[in-house]
Amino acid sequence: MTASVNRQVILKKRPQGLPDDSCYEWRESPIPEPGPDQLLVRNVYMSLDPAIRGWMDDRPSYFPPIELGEPMRATTIGIVVKSNAPGFEPGDIVQGLNGWEDYSVAPGEGFTAKLPVELGFPLTHFLSVLGPTALTSYFGLHDLGKPKAGETVLVSGGAGAVGSIVGQLAKLESCHVTGIAGTDEKCSWMQDTLGFDAAFNYRTRQHDLSAAIAETCPNGVDIYFDNVGGPLLEAAIDHINDNARILLCGAISGYNSEEPPPGPRNLWQLIVKTARMEGFLIRDYLDQWAAGAEALGPLVAEGNLKHREHIEVGLENATQAFLRLFDGSHEGKLIVDIASGELP
Amino acid sequence: MTASVNRQVILKKRPQGLPDDSCYEWRESPIPEPGPDQLLVRNVYMSLDPAIRGWMDDRPSYFPPIELGEPMRATTIGIVVKSNAPGFEPGDIVQGLNGWEDYSVAPGEGFTAKLPVELGFPLTHFLSVLGPTALTSYFGLHDLGKPKAGETVLVSGGAGAVGSIVGQLAKLESCHVTGIAGTDEKCSWMQDTLGFDAAFNYRTRQHDLSAAIAETCPNGVDIYFDNVGGPLLEAAIDHINDNARILLCGAISGYNSEEPPPGPRNLWQLIVKTARMEGFLIRDYLDQWAAGAEALGPLVAEGNLKHREHIEVGLENATQAFLRLFDGSHEGKLIVDIASGELP
Repeated sequence: MTASVNRQVILKKRPQGLPDDSCYEWRESPIPEPGPDQLLVRNVYMSLDPAIRGWMDDRPSYFPPIELGEPMRATTIGIVVKSNAPGFEPGDIVQGLNGWEDYSVAPGEGFTAKLPVELGFPLTHFLSVLGPTALTSYFGLHDLGKPKAGETVLVSGGAGAVGSIVGQLAKLESCHVTGIAGTDEKCSWMQDTLGFDAAFNYRTRQHDLSAAIAETCPNGVDIYFDNVGGPLLEAAIDHINDNARILLCGAISGYNSEEPPPGPRNLWQLIVKTARMEGFLIRDYLDQWAAGAEALGPLVAEGNLKHREHIEVGLENATQAFLRLFDGSHEGKLIVDIASGELP
Repeated sequence: MTASVNRQVILKKRPQGLPDDSCYEWRESPIPEPGPDQLLVRNVYMSLDPAIRGWMDDRPSYFPPIELGEPMRATTIGIVVKSNAPGFEPGDIVQGLNGWEDYSVAPGEGFTAKLPVELGFPLTHFLSVLGPTALTSYFGLHDLGKPKAGETVLVSGGAGAVGSIVGQLAKLESCHVTGIAGTDEKCSWMQDTLGFDAAFNYRTRQHDLSAAIAETCPNGVDIYFDNVGGPLLEAAIDHINDNARILLCGAISGYNSEEPPPGPRNLWQLIVKTARMEGFLIRDYLDQWAAGAEALGPLVAEGNLKHREHIEVGLENATQAFLRLFDGSHEGKLIVDIASGELP
């Protein structure tokens, strides 16, 4: 706790397309004081997720946009420095929705939660395989997808933080799992390490996505867990089975588009296959968070949920690291290490 | 039962776009003989529905395509002339999926069902307000839409056979109902006769569909019952509320397109609103058919489900009449009277 200033990454300008340096301002502010029912948190790790890109736009969404002049927003893990909120004490390790900054004033309720450090997992796991992305996989697949043994689960962003867990959970349900990713290395990782049945590279197959799905999903698609949107969604709809479930979890392919990409031209297939397409936000499962983590914990401890973490060191590197989400150059859950040296 | 030949409308050529005369052949065949477990049915009324256009294409769908050289297909009401099937006798009035023809050989099970003529409704009601289209409205709205009092239900094709019933059923659930149709006359009918709260003409508002929805659905859209697809679907998605349900029941706007129309570019709204889009086929409710008709019967008898029937006389006029579905020049459920003079 040696820092005397609060380094912050401020949203200066809303991006057109990919965010560049002109969108951010680096600011050094005094360390803030928590008000009643608030905490002062020293941020240690920060999760970089595609959803953050959406919050940078000034359009209605499930969270208010990040205001210009305010810090960028992310899920962080940090140490409580001061507490004016019941149930929290200095030294507690907490997770919450905070700023891209050294110190955040966090509310004592809502998104702020004490982490079960007694379980003995590395803290970064609570941003990856036990974190919001993994819980997105867990609740999305089980609550909305309802996979049955023998069904085929197709997952885009299959090597990503959400998709890699979706595929492994689906394998545990005895499904045929096909993963889609943007490099051959990720495809090999999905098949060789995660145990997916099949995989393909959407970049090398971009001109015959539909054929790639037909080859890798020989019995059609019962669940499409979509993290990317765009042309893959249309191609997947071409191969859905009767009563298929399409879970829309993300649409990263369009997040940086100035013009919205064309939508799938084959939605009539939802009628002839009496299929369903459903949007999903982990926000709606806050009250079941603990149950989800309890279900995933043993799987992680037993080595049944493999994962990778891509950790970039230094708050000052966060804006460049963020771009990796959109060019796919990260391998594993993207996390920024702000101050792990200050952990006890 | 005086006819000695079986007049048939045969599918000669698959249509490109709107079907024209070159797609059909008029044939006069001998009256067929039913085999074991089959019936000979004298078709009396025939329902013309948008779905038939889909069956004329050679593409995978929920029913096999109509084969070239075979009669066109429709739901008909007819009189049993001969029966080799248990449970049916000559003189029974039956409904089934048969040909555009005077006489059909029908199976004694599956889609063939005896009509409850004892209820005293005009027979054509079993193709309109008590028929497959009305049951589509009933099961689609209640089973998938699950309307709650005070919610807003937007329905395209609102003056059509499905939409007009959807809107009235939603009014009975105390919803705000907005109907969309293609003429001012239909809009007036929806508001003045059916009791919809609001309506707009998608032709005169084609350049500001989104504004038209905003004006007529001031509290946003909770259920969009979509019978047409196309640009209206994208405009409706712009206005959905949290947890909205979009029921895809038809996509007539694209049925005659040689190129599939562009899909909605705003599907990401399904994520931020955690909304659902679901395809629906009345085929899947065959076993609940009687229950649906029992629920609708009293509403019809009490005058709570108003409707219109557009009856064209003569099998020879069926192919021209069919086109009315696509130019919107019919007012009410489109039915062909093949031989009502032969009813007892």
